[in-house]
Amino acid sequence: MSVYLDNSATTKPCEAAVKKALFMMNENFGNPSSLHMCGYNAKKELDNARKTLASFLSCDVKEIYFTSGGTAANNTAILGTARTKHREGKKIITTGLEHPSVIKHFQLLEEAGFEAVYLKPDRNGKINLDELSNAVDGNTILVSVMAVNNEVGSIQDISQIKGIIKSKNSKAYFHCDAVQGFGKMAIKPKKLGIDLMSMSAHKIHGIKGAGALFVNSSVRLMPSILGGGQENGLVSGTEPMPAICAFAAAVEDIGSVEKNLADTQRVKQYFTDKIKTVDGVYINSPDDALPYIINISVKGVPSQVMLNALSAEGIYVSAGSACSKGHRSDVLSAMGVAPSLIDSAIRISLSKSTTENDMDLLYNGIVNTVKRVRR
Amino acid sequence: MSVYLDNSATTKPCEAAVKKALFMMNENFGNPSSLHMCGYNAKKELDNARKTLASFLSCDVKEIYFTSGGTAANNTAILGTARTKHREGKKIITTGLEHPSVIKHFQLLEEAGFEAVYLKPDRNGKINLDELSNAVDGNTILVSVMAVNNEVGSIQDISQIKGIIKSKNSKAYFHCDAVQGFGKMAIKPKKLGIDLMSMSAHKIHGIKGAGALFVNSSVRLMPSILGGGQENGLVSGTEPMPAICAFAAAVEDIGSVEKNLADTQRVKQYFTDKIKTVDGVYINSPDDALPYIINISVKGVPSQVMLNALSAEGIYVSAGSACSKGHRSDVLSAMGVAPSLIDSAIRISLSKSTTENDMDLLYNGIVNTVKRVRR
Repeated sequence: MSVYLDNSATTKPCEAAVKKALFMMNENFGNPSSLHMCGYNAKKELDNARKTLASFLSCDVKEIYFTSGGTAANNTAILGTARTKHREGKKIITTGLEHPSVIKHFQLLEEAGFEAVYLKPDRNGKINLDELSNAVDGNTILVSVMAVNNEVGSIQDISQIKGIIKSKNSKAYFHCDAVQGFGKMAIKPKKLGIDLMSMSAHKIHGIKGAGALFVNSSVRLMPSILGGGQENGLVSGTEPMPAICAFAAAVEDIGSVEKNLADTQRVKQYFTDKIKTVDGVYINSPDDALPYIINISVKGVPSQVMLNALSAEGIYVSAGSACSKGHRSDVLSAMGVAPSLIDSAIRISLSKSTTENDMDLLYNGIVNTVKRVRR
Repeated sequence: MSVYLDNSATTKPCEAAVKKALFMMNENFGNPSSLHMCGYNAKKELDNARKTLASFLSCDVKEIYFTSGGTAANNTAILGTARTKHREGKKIITTGLEHPSVIKHFQLLEEAGFEAVYLKPDRNGKINLDELSNAVDGNTILVSVMAVNNEVGSIQDISQIKGIIKSKNSKAYFHCDAVQGFGKMAIKPKKLGIDLMSMSAHKIHGIKGAGALFVNSSVRLMPSILGGGQENGLVSGTEPMPAICAFAAAVEDIGSVEKNLADTQRVKQYFTDKIKTVDGVYINSPDDALPYIINISVKGVPSQVMLNALSAEGIYVSAGSACSKGHRSDVLSAMGVAPSLIDSAIRISLSKSTTENDMDLLYNGIVNTVKRVRR
């Protein structure tokens, strides 16, 4: 009996996704670029997958570009914007909350002569909108703000952020890394006025190896990965068909985003009400965070000790984010969490099928570990 | 009953690959970066996959970097070399035989101020070694030559090419796009002195969405896709585990490269002996080409007409390469094939399990189509 609570690192593929991947491997293995029946059959599935994504996001099919994952989507959005708009301006703005695949591409562009601004999150893991407004100017070509932070679950007000950017510079592109929010809360990029939005399949019970980038039809974007011209020239390379089609199957399997969110909010509340009564436990995630991510610190128990103790009991959580192994969280630092508490922070990340019973097992695991360590 | 002869575009995943992908989806779905048991179990499979590739190539495990495919491997090799060595020199050399994922990255670097040289292939689809020798100078940082051309199957003499490059400039990197040759002929990059070598899973009965780049341990390479620092920092993004592990399973399933090659040579010979007796049929592939690729022209029958006619009978071949849909082949032009014959060229690409019976069906299909069209 195991309890998997590291769903922000990756999720268990749903049955529908696995079934679809299997079909694409065994029965529809053609290359969608091939001009014979096997190619057409594959192309049809690719078109259908695109329709599923577009319908889910309420956008046009032509605005969905499949990638090999969330990191590749962020790469395509950020380097693509820089390549397309470098003559218009050199200022690029992001936040201290971002995933390394955003931050590191910003640093790369800094080396290439761009001026990068990193907005600091406040104690609630949100950026200051006045600071954003002051930062955006006529020289700004890109603002990249993530929808939901991967470590604490804080949600940015995308609609307000979009309004501020466009009021200061209507030509600047607004990129949103929605890898943690996609499928878990309503984010309709077209309606919100987002120009570019990154998504990942394996965070929503698809399989590893596919992602997508929403590119608003008004946006011009040069490619970063060149070759056969797949994905309308933006993302070259034979499409990872099993993962792409499984991605669409996973999207169809989401069900009601609102109901899942309400259920998860209830499970989160149940757990936090219990765990916060334990001596030395601090909840780092803000109250209004996406309930799928709960970051807590257990004073005196280093993250890896807690993680190992829980893992031994078949309970899987994360220390910070899986992508920043061992590195002390910049996000928690920026949120003013004390270093000793950062070193004992764990991230509990839920899926729509996480139950109160799962959280009871986690609660018991944490309490037992605390007793053992403190003894 | 269908005959799939477009194996250079993509292959049917072998049973072992599908089984492994299924296992990774259902039973070992953890993120290899996660520091708990699910992560360790995934990491172990990733390590094993790397060992399989390294053992197959007779190189060190640290020299194998998984990518999302052949195009991503070429991107990483070429842009990575440019980023690493741009201060050492500005000359980059490749051939007119290359896949668009090489050519287009060269063109991108030309825009960025590099001097690119494109060596022309001769009538046999080989580059002229004297021209190569004349081109390589002290300013050269990269020479990229594919092992086996994807349209006609011509094989370059990698060992001689390596010798020429290193004798003219020992510091220049030698990149080899081995996507079409890998697993079909013996190419041991370490022994051959190749610095960088690209491979793709789905061309050898793995699944779409994984590839690999061999990077000689003596080579320093900066990454192009940044983020979580996976693959020792060279290829960021959560590893496409089902596709990577299926890739290794497909490599293990290859059996004897030499035996497969001899079998395929026999099947090729059987077919070409028959088809060349048909009036108006020309074999564009050189005699010493890799037998897995046979390019022929059927005078008076446009490629797409032949392709459609065969597809209707369940026989799948390609017009040129799948990646250059509709575009008249530069490779055949450079090889001196007349435009009218280029427009009627088809590529027949075999797998190790293609039989003489398959080729009989193809032969009949071609002959019937010729009769119908010429009537």
